[in-house]
Amino acid sequence: MRQTLDFLLNDWLGVQDLTLRARFAEHSGETFAAVLDTCEKIAREKFAPIARLTDTEEPRFDGERVHLPAATKAATDAYVASGMLAAAQDYAIGGMQLPCVIEMAANAFFSKANVAIGAYAMLTAGNANLLMAHGTAKQREVFAAAEFEGRWFGTMCLSEPQAGSSLSDITTRAELEFAYDPLGSRFRLWGNKMWISAGEHELSENIIHLVLAKIPGPDGKLVAGARGISLFIVPKRMVGADGQLTGERNDVRLAGLNHKLGFRGTSNCLLNFGEAGEGAVGYLVGQPGEGLKCMFHMMNEARIGVGLGAAMLGYAGYEASLAYARQRSQGRAIGPAGKDAAQPQRPIIEHADVKRMLLAQKSYVEGGLALALLCARLVDEQHSGAADAAKEAKLVLEVLIPIVKSWPSEWCLEANSLAIQVLGGYGYTRDFPVEQYWRDNRLNMIHEGTHGIHGLDLLGRKVVMNGGEALLALAARINFTVEAALQQPELAELGNALAAALANVGRATKNAWSSGEPEEALANATPYLQAFGHLVLAWIWLDVALKAGQGAPSDFAQGKQAACRYFFAYELPKIEAWLGVVSRREPLCKDMPDAWF
Amino acid sequence: MRQTLDFLLNDWLGVQDLTLRARFAEHSGETFAAVLDTCEKIAREKFAPIARLTDTEEPRFDGERVHLPAATKAATDAYVASGMLAAAQDYAIGGMQLPCVIEMAANAFFSKANVAIGAYAMLTAGNANLLMAHGTAKQREVFAAAEFEGRWFGTMCLSEPQAGSSLSDITTRAELEFAYDPLGSRFRLWGNKMWISAGEHELSENIIHLVLAKIPGPDGKLVAGARGISLFIVPKRMVGADGQLTGERNDVRLAGLNHKLGFRGTSNCLLNFGEAGEGAVGYLVGQPGEGLKCMFHMMNEARIGVGLGAAMLGYAGYEASLAYARQRSQGRAIGPAGKDAAQPQRPIIEHADVKRMLLAQKSYVEGGLALALLCARLVDEQHSGAADAAKEAKLVLEVLIPIVKSWPSEWCLEANSLAIQVLGGYGYTRDFPVEQYWRDNRLNMIHEGTHGIHGLDLLGRKVVMNGGEALLALAARINFTVEAALQQPELAELGNALAAALANVGRATKNAWSSGEPEEALANATPYLQAFGHLVLAWIWLDVALKAGQGAPSDFAQGKQAACRYFFAYELPKIEAWLGVVSRREPLCKDMPDAWF
Repeated sequence: MRQTLDFLLNDWLGVQDLTLRARFAEHSGETFAAVLDTCEKIAREKFAPIARLTDTEEPRFDGERVHLPAATKAATDAYVASGMLAAAQDYAIGGMQLPCVIEMAANAFFSKANVAIGAYAMLTAGNANLLMAHGTAKQREVFAAAEFEGRWFGTMCLSEPQAGSSLSDITTRAELEFAYDPLGSRFRLWGNKMWISAGEHELSENIIHLVLAKIPGPDGKLVAGARGISLFIVPKRMVGADGQLTGERNDVRLAGLNHKLGFRGTSNCLLNFGEAGEGAVGYLVGQPGEGLKCMFHMMNEARIGVGLGAAMLGYAGYEASLAYARQRSQGRAIGPAGKDAAQPQRPIIEHADVKRMLLAQKSYVEGGLALALLCARLVDEQHSGAADAAKEAKLVLEVLIPIVKSWPSEWCLEANSLAIQVLGGYGYTRDFPVEQYWRDNRLNMIHEGTHGIHGLDLLGRKVVMNGGEALLALAARINFTVEAALQQPELAELGNALAAALANVGRATKNAWSSGEPEEALANATPYLQAFGHLVLAWIWLDVALKAGQGAPSDFAQGKQAACRYFFAYELPKIEAWLGVVSRREPLCKDMPDAWF
Repeated sequence: MRQTLDFLLNDWLGVQDLTLRARFAEHSGETFAAVLDTCEKIAREKFAPIARLTDTEEPRFDGERVHLPAATKAATDAYVASGMLAAAQDYAIGGMQLPCVIEMAANAFFSKANVAIGAYAMLTAGNANLLMAHGTAKQREVFAAAEFEGRWFGTMCLSEPQAGSSLSDITTRAELEFAYDPLGSRFRLWGNKMWISAGEHELSENIIHLVLAKIPGPDGKLVAGARGISLFIVPKRMVGADGQLTGERNDVRLAGLNHKLGFRGTSNCLLNFGEAGEGAVGYLVGQPGEGLKCMFHMMNEARIGVGLGAAMLGYAGYEASLAYARQRSQGRAIGPAGKDAAQPQRPIIEHADVKRMLLAQKSYVEGGLALALLCARLVDEQHSGAADAAKEAKLVLEVLIPIVKSWPSEWCLEANSLAIQVLGGYGYTRDFPVEQYWRDNRLNMIHEGTHGIHGLDLLGRKVVMNGGEALLALAARINFTVEAALQQPELAELGNALAAALANVGRATKNAWSSGEPEEALANATPYLQAFGHLVLAWIWLDVALKAGQGAPSDFAQGKQAACRYFFAYELPKIEAWLGVVSRREPLCKDMPDAWF
């Protein structure tokens, strides 16, 4: 993977250009590479070897504490020691001032080696980043700093048992206790939070929960809808104004661990807040009623992270099945050459169908990786680019976010299934890692917004907002790639195919909305998401192939071009089937009465 | 499911017509229904309640014995007591003389309730059926009879660690010891057999292994290729000519249990034959060198069984997710009606995308069930129909067998993934059964011939043999359905779509073979298999919808028609993408050099 990662970062995305900017001026290609080297090494030495252990020895609750294998703490300690928790922060607070794209690329090694253990760190960094953006100076100094140092870990507490996709229906209640606490306006919270990853463990001396809750109105009632939602810091162990633990425990209790299909190394919790009666202590972050806005500030990075994690699980399976296919002998050639059973069997990588399964994986996982890195690079552009470039990056990101979250979650899961298939019966056993990748990856279509939610976000909001300006910004980029491809005789056909696909998606978008009825337009939002995703990936692949073709001919470059051709030959044609129902606003699903099932 | 099963059997396949045949003359709609009732009850009471237990408490080997949960034995005992092991056998030997289609329909309840435990019985019946076809009178009397009574269970030992898909490369050796043993020519066997389901357990007093092995030639060497393969009965415990256990153990030893992703209730074994030195005792079945032929005699039923099992796992997930979608409230309507957050949330079955996921599942699992039952009905036609009907049934079956094995394995697995998605985070936990269905079902694309193998079988053999007569026989049936649909104004459009799909598949078949080079033709055999499968399922659905339309209008009938329309709107258009590469003999995968990966 490293060669592909370096090519995408250096050649395709030109990350060294970022060092021309003031914020990254002390960096160079060498410092970027050193960060990647360090993370690759820690991931290989501390995370990968315990991937199966952390799957088998699930988090266990003894009524008091949650137990994880000891090796988990050794791995998270090594991550903390690397300084990566503060990778993107200012030098002034001990950070590395790394660009988002390098930070994400470096973290990808952990997702690939052991996605469930990597999650503790990713959640902590996301939590602290949010506090840096929305917390008070004191909150940053006390909570975020301890998280960047890795002394305390963090969580995000959004869902409740009755409110998953529909956050406006949360009922956790927050009542003001004392407005002038040095740590922020102090509230008392009561409620239950579900699906809290890393919600309880002993890996760090404290856990900082960021909790969405509603402050009741003057009538004592919770306001219906998203408007009433505020954000609070709720520490597991109480913290003084000096940032030291007071020795008291806050009223946050583990009600139970969820036992999952995969991703088992991350403890996943139902937490009760305030069940003892007086309420859990929480400190307001940002303004009352702006909790969702604060939380969604970090959502783009979180969603890129999910897509990148899915791509990494896919990559791990691709590498495992490629290695297997090279050493496993089975069967002979098709046709006369294979008729002599006295000849030895040949490595299965020589069979066309095995190569098809490997090429499919390659196109999914390297494509997913490229897409995620591009999105991370757009985050950098948005934050440190020139004004017009930043604006364009923001627009393109808007429309790519539902894709980068969803597409790798679906297709790199399919890659994992193909990896199992390459290994055959062996792939179905727990003696090989591929079955675990498949189980772990199945989560990614569910968390951080389900597939269905992202389809609605894309077709219902992103491609139509402000007269479709985000879609137009993406189309401009795609057309740029098309133009470049049309200059290359061997890629012209693919350029035309991409242009046609873009036109088809545009037409379907228009047709979906032609009646102006959201219910009609959005009845097929998921097939639209799928088609849009394949369009985006075809674009990514053509752009990557163009760049690969600019260097000296090599196996590496030809591999990229072959994966590109695979995607155009086997994958892109699928969009017609998805767009058909979108374009004619097929009402079948929408109109299906319950009684007919 | 029962209503759908009854409709498919009675209305669509007209199974009562079979009672006009001499072999089934003592049967009636009532006796068929009674068998289904009994099996449904045993499956519900004994198999379903232990589905999670048999997943959690995997078979465990203590060095001496393989331990299974006690409830497993209670379940298999109840199955044995039902008499289903001999369901298809003659009355004279204690059988029920049931048609294959009723036997399979009845067994479907066990696959749906607990596929891993049902496997012990299915393997035993398949083993005994093979002996009825190819064994000596004494072998039938001693071995098959004990299996039909359920005193002894059976296995099929084909694969070896180095020979999975490539059976011609097995190296298990069989040397003649005594030609005139009453139980059959007695051989000694040495070798290792891998992936042996039910290879070791204590559920029955003996285990009868049917083992493929090679008899060395006059030079003492094993013959290369499939020609040298013979079939042997190798009992776990030695049996006398009187059919009684002698008290001695045969030299068949468990070398290890495989620890699987799913299907965990079925012990899956690596068995060593003859490791003590003198060889395991085995009795020849059929003629030397005809082992594969004997084994494949039962393969059609086994492959229909795999497809039916996959459909049943899909059905179980469909029912679980449908029930969940009806009771789980989340979110509100799209558009103005859903804007008021003070209104209660609505059941998720009211969301178009949830209905899409349920309709997709319905079309996959009911379609898969219908296909498997049709195939079983064709087996009956082949065995008890008039000569011309039997011939036609055999031809149609030839081409449907790769589809009935593969299509449900792929698409009912997808159904299971959709079931998880409907349940969201809950579906990802082990508190709900859907994640287990998904894990269990992943096996079906691997065993009884992988997807890739069936693609080669379909495009390389079945559709071209004897001038394509099997394909023509299927096409005639499809055209019959098209003609019927064209008579119905509301189905005419679907009839035309099916006719066009058939023409496209025919054209792709011709194009694939137009260069006459097997390597070129078969490079895209798997996409061909996928397209062919979707063509077959579209035909099945249109035929089912036609039949459903003949009764009084009802929710049930409209549900069938909606699932049919779903399949034509959302699924059938996919075949264009698959057929494109087939038609142009896309060489990309075939030509990809190893070094480019």
